[in-house]
Amino acid sequence: MTIPAELDPAERILMGPGPSTVPTRILRAMGSPTLGHLDPQYIGYMDETCAMLREVFQTKNLLTFPVSGTGMAGMEAIASNLIEPGDEAIVCINGVFGIRMQDIIERCGATVHPLQIPWGETFTDEAVAAKVAEHPNAKLLTIVHAETSTGAHQPLAGISKIVHAAGMLFVVDAVTSLGGHELKVDEWQIDAIFSGTQKCLSCPPGLSPVSFSDAALEVMDTRKTKVQSWYLDVSMLRNYYTGSGGRAYHHTAPINMIYALREALRIVLEEGLENRIERHRVMHLELRAGLEGLGLSYIPQNSLYTLNCVTVPEGIDEAAVRRKLLENYSIEIGAGLGVFAGKAWRIGLMGHSATRRNIQTILAALKDCMG
Amino acid sequence: MTIPAELDPAERILMGPGPSTVPTRILRAMGSPTLGHLDPQYIGYMDETCAMLREVFQTKNLLTFPVSGTGMAGMEAIASNLIEPGDEAIVCINGVFGIRMQDIIERCGATVHPLQIPWGETFTDEAVAAKVAEHPNAKLLTIVHAETSTGAHQPLAGISKIVHAAGMLFVVDAVTSLGGHELKVDEWQIDAIFSGTQKCLSCPPGLSPVSFSDAALEVMDTRKTKVQSWYLDVSMLRNYYTGSGGRAYHHTAPINMIYALREALRIVLEEGLENRIERHRVMHLELRAGLEGLGLSYIPQNSLYTLNCVTVPEGIDEAAVRRKLLENYSIEIGAGLGVFAGKAWRIGLMGHSATRRNIQTILAALKDCMG
Repeated sequence: MTIPAELDPAERILMGPGPSTVPTRILRAMGSPTLGHLDPQYIGYMDETCAMLREVFQTKNLLTFPVSGTGMAGMEAIASNLIEPGDEAIVCINGVFGIRMQDIIERCGATVHPLQIPWGETFTDEAVAAKVAEHPNAKLLTIVHAETSTGAHQPLAGISKIVHAAGMLFVVDAVTSLGGHELKVDEWQIDAIFSGTQKCLSCPPGLSPVSFSDAALEVMDTRKTKVQSWYLDVSMLRNYYTGSGGRAYHHTAPINMIYALREALRIVLEEGLENRIERHRVMHLELRAGLEGLGLSYIPQNSLYTLNCVTVPEGIDEAAVRRKLLENYSIEIGAGLGVFAGKAWRIGLMGHSATRRNIQTILAALKDCMG
Repeated sequence: MTIPAELDPAERILMGPGPSTVPTRILRAMGSPTLGHLDPQYIGYMDETCAMLREVFQTKNLLTFPVSGTGMAGMEAIASNLIEPGDEAIVCINGVFGIRMQDIIERCGATVHPLQIPWGETFTDEAVAAKVAEHPNAKLLTIVHAETSTGAHQPLAGISKIVHAAGMLFVVDAVTSLGGHELKVDEWQIDAIFSGTQKCLSCPPGLSPVSFSDAALEVMDTRKTKVQSWYLDVSMLRNYYTGSGGRAYHHTAPINMIYALREALRIVLEEGLENRIERHRVMHLELRAGLEGLGLSYIPQNSLYTLNCVTVPEGIDEAAVRRKLLENYSIEIGAGLGVFAGKAWRIGLMGHSATRRNIQTILAALKDCMG
């Protein structure tokens, strides 16, 4: 066959639902020489990475580590380790990622009781309390903190109390909030949480940070059946990531991806977590004013800073606008997903992409491409 | 917390069971700007990567792509897509990776009939024929082409005929052979095969190349139950990787890892697959002569070129030698695994690591550290 030409990817401004633009420092760290996965130097880097993840998740959970797969692998790791066949689970659904969680939990053999509200809305404490009362035997309740398909930002603290009062585990999807929104795993008593690296951490995709509380650990320790996924079986992974029982080889960790995540977390801590969240808030307000000035209205009740989901005006070919943005400006934004397919744009403001320069650029470019 | 220092990994010579040393070209490609996973330019790179994978696997199978996880994710992808609860499977076990395959297939709900021989030995056609005759209802038979735990090199062509004559699928673990040993997926009629990127392709770990035959596709298309893993469900992944039904978003692909794999495959094809295999053969003979000259004897009957598993001489502290190699020479070799723990060294000769310079260096270093 003809050997393809040398790689030469365009230098996009990534303002879609993720990945966000990756800083040069992270790309460079990722391109550092590969170490073996049992090399003491690598184990040191991995431990530092997990320690920084704890800081960014605001947790003391020992079992906090990056799953060797993209965000959905983290979702599946949590479901497959906490759920056993015959369990019941309540899944809050207000977009694509709640639907996925239902699918994954059902594949683990549980009965799911979905709590559904219209896409773009957020759950009230009352609605959750009623659902929890209806299904007192549910083992856990899952909810999406930052619905990447709608831009909805879900408050969690009150719901956590309701879930724990009923004796259930509280499971959170934080793919689009970690490092961009306030997220307090210990204070909010989150029992299991997963995220992705390619959103507000501005690291390339390939890892899914997760964290498990002691209560979640106890549930895993008292399972009656094996975890159906060998690759994601936390009972084996924890030896490697926390050193309990020695650093037993389970699978070969994605070394260079860990380098990238480590550098991404160093950047987060250098900026300061609070400063970083404040930057996302301020940039969101600036983008929002600009988008509304162009006649675009926000879809969700309570918008995320990090993902801005707006209605495409009547008469505009949304795909043509995205294509022009990509071709003429090398800017990526996202299409609508699910019920919003063809009707919405999703404009990300995540991590390294959340800058005034990018906001002014995209507002000018959008105006041109819509015009 | 104190922010950890800048990343500065040592420049090891990686001659363990993987990862192997990654060429600068691949590290540099991996550090190229991240594109979105639905960007037409990225889709082009992905398609080229899959085309080159077909070439290296020597197959025309359309469904040939890198699973978004390390090697064991590929093993699990194959098991969970081909197996349904209640199935029977024959698993050939002569080391760690056969045992893992049994574990994974059992987690998928099948009854496994293990065919066990001592570690380090290889399976004869007769032994397989007898086992197949004993379990005519088995859906598939799995075997390890290159047992990374023992260094055994398994001939496949004769066994494939026996398996197909019995109407079973033929499943192969080629983690340590792809790109270093002769491996002819179509000619040998392999129905499902998986590998890793960090062995003879000398790419960082993080992806697992897989390929499925038409017969395997038919088995997947006529499943009665959902695949238990959502993340690894090929019925959804194939839309993204082959374009059937559009490039539907399933999960965010690990973009920069694909850059790395693409560059690794370009290097393989530039060298030429046959030349590369011949290089592995010649380097193996040179290393073997040197190791035997040091009084080290090979464990397997039929040694791989790519992994050289030798007995640690009486009275030598094997861990101390490996530590000295790492500290004084920055060379990594592997310890024994499973029944060979504490008794063997595993010396990899994979991809970019398989050079005369490395061989002469490790022979001198081993002599020094053992002495």
